[in-house]
Formats: sequence, C-alpha cells, structure tokens
Amino acid sequence: MASSIPIRPQASVILGVDVGGTKLATVLATPDGAIRHKVRLPTEAERGPEYGVARVISMLRRNLQETGTDPADVIGIGVACGSPMDAARGIILGPPNLQSWNPVPIVEILESEFGIYTELENDANAGALAEWLLGAGRGMRNVVYMTMGTGIGGGLILDGHLYRGSNGNAGEVGHMRVVDRGGPRCGCGKRGCLEAFCSGPSIARRAREALTGLGKTPLLALAGSVEAVSAEHVFSAARQGDALALHLVEETAYYMGVGLANVIQALNPQAIVLGTIATQQGDFFLDRVRAVVHEETWPQMSEVVQILPSPLGELVGDYAAISIILQHMNTTTDPFLSKQS
Amino acid sequence: MASSIPIRPQASVILGVDVGGTKLATVLATPDGAIRHKVRLPTEAERGPEYGVARVISMLRRNLQETGTDPADVIGIGVACGSPMDAARGIILGPPNLQSWNPVPIVEILESEFGIYTELENDANAGALAEWLLGAGRGMRNVVYMTMGTGIGGGLILDGHLYRGSNGNAGEVGHMRVVDRGGPRCGCGKRGCLEAFCSGPSIARRAREALTGLGKTPLLALAGSVEAVSAEHVFSAARQGDALALHLVEETAYYMGVGLANVIQALNPQAIVLGTIATQQGDFFLDRVRAVVHEETWPQMSEVVQILPSPLGELVGDYAAISIILQHMNTTTDPFLSKQS
Repeated sequence: MASSIPIRPQASVILGVDVGGTKLATVLATPDGAIRHKVRLPTEAERGPEYGVARVISMLRRNLQETGTDPADVIGIGVACGSPMDAARGIILGPPNLQSWNPVPIVEILESEFGIYTELENDANAGALAEWLLGAGRGMRNVVYMTMGTGIGGGLILDGHLYRGSNGNAGEVGHMRVVDRGGPRCGCGKRGCLEAFCSGPSIARRAREALTGLGKTPLLALAGSVEAVSAEHVFSAARQGDALALHLVEETAYYMGVGLANVIQALNPQAIVLGTIATQQGDFFLDRVRAVVHEETWPQMSEVVQILPSPLGELVGDYAAISIILQHMNTTTDPFLSKQS
Repeated sequence: MASSIPIRPQASVILGVDVGGTKLATVLATPDGAIRHKVRLPTEAERGPEYGVARVISMLRRNLQETGTDPADVIGIGVACGSPMDAARGIILGPPNLQSWNPVPIVEILESEFGIYTELENDANAGALAEWLLGAGRGMRNVVYMTMGTGIGGGLILDGHLYRGSNGNAGEVGHMRVVDRGGPRCGCGKRGCLEAFCSGPSIARRAREALTGLGKTPLLALAGSVEAVSAEHVFSAARQGDALALHLVEETAYYMGVGLANVIQALNPQAIVLGTIATQQGDFFLDRVRAVVHEETWPQMSEVVQILPSPLGELVGDYAAISIILQHMNTTTDPFLSKQS
C-alpha cells in the first residue's frame, strides 16, 4: 500500500490537490465540505514534473500558512489527477495532458514532505465521490457520475462506496458502444463509443460534418466558420430554433439516453449525475435525455432513477480532491483497507 | 425485513429450494457446497400456489427425514425463483412462468413451518452467488454472471458481495441495447436488447428469418422444417460447416462480445461467467466471443478479465439456492443487514 502515515479522522481540516494539464489547484476545507482557502496556479507542464510537484508543495504550504493551520491539524491530503495511474501505490503515470509526469510517486512525496496521510484517485472517481458526498447524490446508496466535457469519464458509487473495479478501471461508461458496427473513431482508439458521439469535441465534429456542403445556416453564422463550430454554438443555435442544430442536440440526447439506459439496466442506480455540458445546458438538454431513458429502461428501473446535472459544476475538481479523504469519514474506519482494493 | 429467525452459522447443513415454472427441486447440502440429498418433482403450476407450496414443504421434509437431519441442524433455507419478487420481504410476485404465485410470502411460510432462517433471491442473482462461491468465479472479487438460455439474465458480484441495485433490479445486462435505433423486439418490450439477438429463442428466430426464401440448406435439413429450427440446430450445422449457420454463430458472438465489452468497460470484472448455450458450446462459441471482446475493450480491462463457461451447467439452480445462504458464511456475520439492502 502507498500510505505509511495514518489518517487523522479527529483532526480539523482536509487538504485537496487537483492536478490538471493546464492548472493546479490546492484547497483547504473543513469536514463539512466548506472550502476555506484556495490557491490556483498554471501547471506549466512543459517545465516538467519536478517543477510542478515543487509548485504543489509550495501551494499546500500557502494553504497552511495563510490559514494558520498546523500540519498536525490535517486529516489527510486528497490528490485528484487524470489516469493512467497506480492509485493503490499512489503513482501518477503520465495522463494524456501531463505525459512527462510518468512516474510521479505523489503520495510518497507529499507524505514525506508534510507528514500527512495522502491518497491519490483518478479525477472521474474522485468526481463521483464529490457528487455523492457533497453534490447531487448526497444520502444516496448508488450513484453514477459521468463527466460530459472533453471526454466522457465516469465513476461508480455502489452500495455506499466507490467501486474501483478489478484493477482500478471501472466506470468507463463513456466507452460503451452505442451503435452496432463501425461508428466514428473515439479518442480511445475504439469505434462507436458514447464519447465519440456526445463529448464536446464529438458534438462539434458531428456539427462540422453536418454543415459541410450546406449554405449559410444560423449555426454557421453564429460560429463564423465551419472550423470554429463548438458544442456551445450547437446548443445556442438550437435554443434559437436552428433546425440543424436542434437535430444535433436531439441526436446527442438520443445517444446519451441510450448510454444511460444501458448503465441503468446494469446497475439500477438512484441517480446519474452529469457534469459540464449537462450542467451548462440544464433541462433544455436533460429533458430530452430523460425522455430517451424513459423509453429505453424498464419501468421498475426508471421510476427510481434521477438524471441530474452536477451542482458542483466547474468547482467539481476542488470538491473531488477533498472527497478522496472525506469518503473515509463516512464509510470506513480503515482507509488502508479501501486503498488496497 | 422478512426474516424473524436468526441464521445458525454454526449448524451443519443448508437447505435449498429452486422454484421453476415446470419443476421444483429441493436439496440438502453441507457448507462446502456438496449436495447430499435432492428431491425433484414437477411444479404442476396449473394446480396453483397452495398446492405448489405444500409440495415444497413436503419435499423439504423428505430432505430432512431421509438424511436423519434435525431442523435445528440447518443453517438456513435459500429459495431461488424468477422475478418479479420482493426479495427484501421474501415474497414471490408471479414470475412469467408461475403467474398464479402472486403474492406468495414464501419466507414467512417456510420460517413458520420449519423454524429455520429463510431467504428469497431471484435466480439470476442466486446463480451469480453460486458461480462466485462454488463455480468459475471462486476466490474472485468481481464476477459478472449471465445466463444464456431462454433469456439473458444476470447477476453482479462486486467488491466481494452481491450487488442488488437500488430496488433489486441490478444485473439486467441482457437488456442493454446493442444496436443503434430500432432492432428486433425483445421479450421485455424494448427493442434492440442483447437478449433479442442472443437468447436461444432469438438465435432460432434469426435463423428462421435467414432461411425464409432459401432452398434446402444443411441447417434446414438438420431441423426438418423452418418452424422447427432451434439454437442447437444452428450450432450443430455451424460445426458441420454450413455457411449460413456459421454466419449466425459469428453474428451471435459479435453481439455477445459487444454486450460483454460494454459490461467490462463499466465494471472492470475479473470474470464473466456464461451459462447454458455457452456451457454447451464451449470454446467453439466462446473463442469467437473472446475475439470480439478483445477488439472492443481497453487492453487494461481485457487483460484482467476471463470469459468462462459455467461449470455448474444444468445444476446451477441447486447450487444457486444453497448459495443464498452460503454467501452469509463468507461475507458477513449479519444476514439481516444484507437482506435489507
């Protein structure tokens, strides 16, 4: 196991680190989830992992010093980062937008620096913990979280704890196939994945394909050029009544609905919480998704499941990081046990 | 909760009841899973639930009397039956082939009759428990079980226990959509479900559709008439080199592979155990499924998952019933707790 220092459940604050390809954020929060202090700086990934890790350490020092907190008052440090990683051993293994961070034994580094229990989790799993402990899934036993931004990641809370799968890869619901054969190539290398239809870049790609060879449409006028079309343009044009954009939104909702229905038939959750695009577009998009889910799931499943936008929105990264520690205060008295799984 | 009598983990034997539409089976087994005595009689469903329940009681009495077992020596009685049911309250609610059994409070009836802790579970969940505790998934933490017979049911063992979902409906992986829009009508009412392509009757239906308008093919010769074609005929003809039958087998393997890949991307299990057709056809069928799964899943998932035929085969019902009790001897000291979920 990665950690050599015990968690301090009786201490008063939690530290969180959100490691992204473009920005680093560290927060200090109380166990009720209230963020008391935050530091945010660019990652400057091109300067390499030593530089970035040193920056994280100095940011955490600022969290402590500027709030007058003693390291002994910290319950633990949660670190959220993209996969691939070895979460059990606390090692970052070069996620797509931080490829030089490979390997970075972040848990060992922060534990020896601060003497505080530290735990690493991938950002989709940590996001699921955040939505379950602090967001739309509070008080529920079974919650599926799906990002809906650059990609479609996911995390599963099942029977009141994070389900990681056999080697930490559970929850990749964005890479379930939603068409029979073929389909567009996904960023993951497969074809026909949900993500290849419904991520932000995939919506934009489908819009560009649909616009090719057409004359001036309201969507094209909004974007300026075919190349400039984004998912946001598609939703804006659809809200203004552009038929083509509305068709693209309906199609997106159809594939999301099919993907969610498949998840619901398998897992019978109480909620599916959707981030980013779903949060931004709200019921204009989600009501269309819900209608498809209603068609595509058994009544006994659809009557117990809610399709909800993430209330944490853009702040999910901050809450995700602290939720890695918070989960142990709700579900287990032995963090080492759940880290090993 | 249904049960008013505590389980007796220190006692020496387990009773199991498999309630089917055509036959009833009761078994007496030791906690290592060895079946010591079995009674099997037709259900005679047309004679109604009172008759059937009285028959179950007399069969269980025979299990006890013919082995010289005192009821006080019984750990518990596990009852496996088709859904719908209220497993938490121990009530059978008229499954498709036993519609008059609605409601039958089987747990209450058997507990008051025998004074033995009794628990009801749907047969797909109980089958998953059997494969995990006594079959192909022994010693694993995450196992998906899928029947592949008249229908495609399923049960999920996740993080070392049966995952039932929010109202007992988890594991319906046979009713995930595997084609984009439309698709054949499934027995469940939806369209395009995995079951609508890969259950025994669905394979036969696809074969009949494919044979319509063709002349005499080896498959047709084997079956005698288009109406008589079964899934077994399709596999037999395929093994003998019939091109049409082989195409149907490949297509079946493709849809099964897509369905399993979706399950694997979501749940990252160590094994998927397939019953009935997969058990009968072995690697002739499963190697084709494995090839599709390999194409359709991420390497980090496919390298840890095994696609296995059920070794319990036709006996899964007997083992399923006793596994409902056995699970408590492996995973929890408080059966009431897990019954409530």
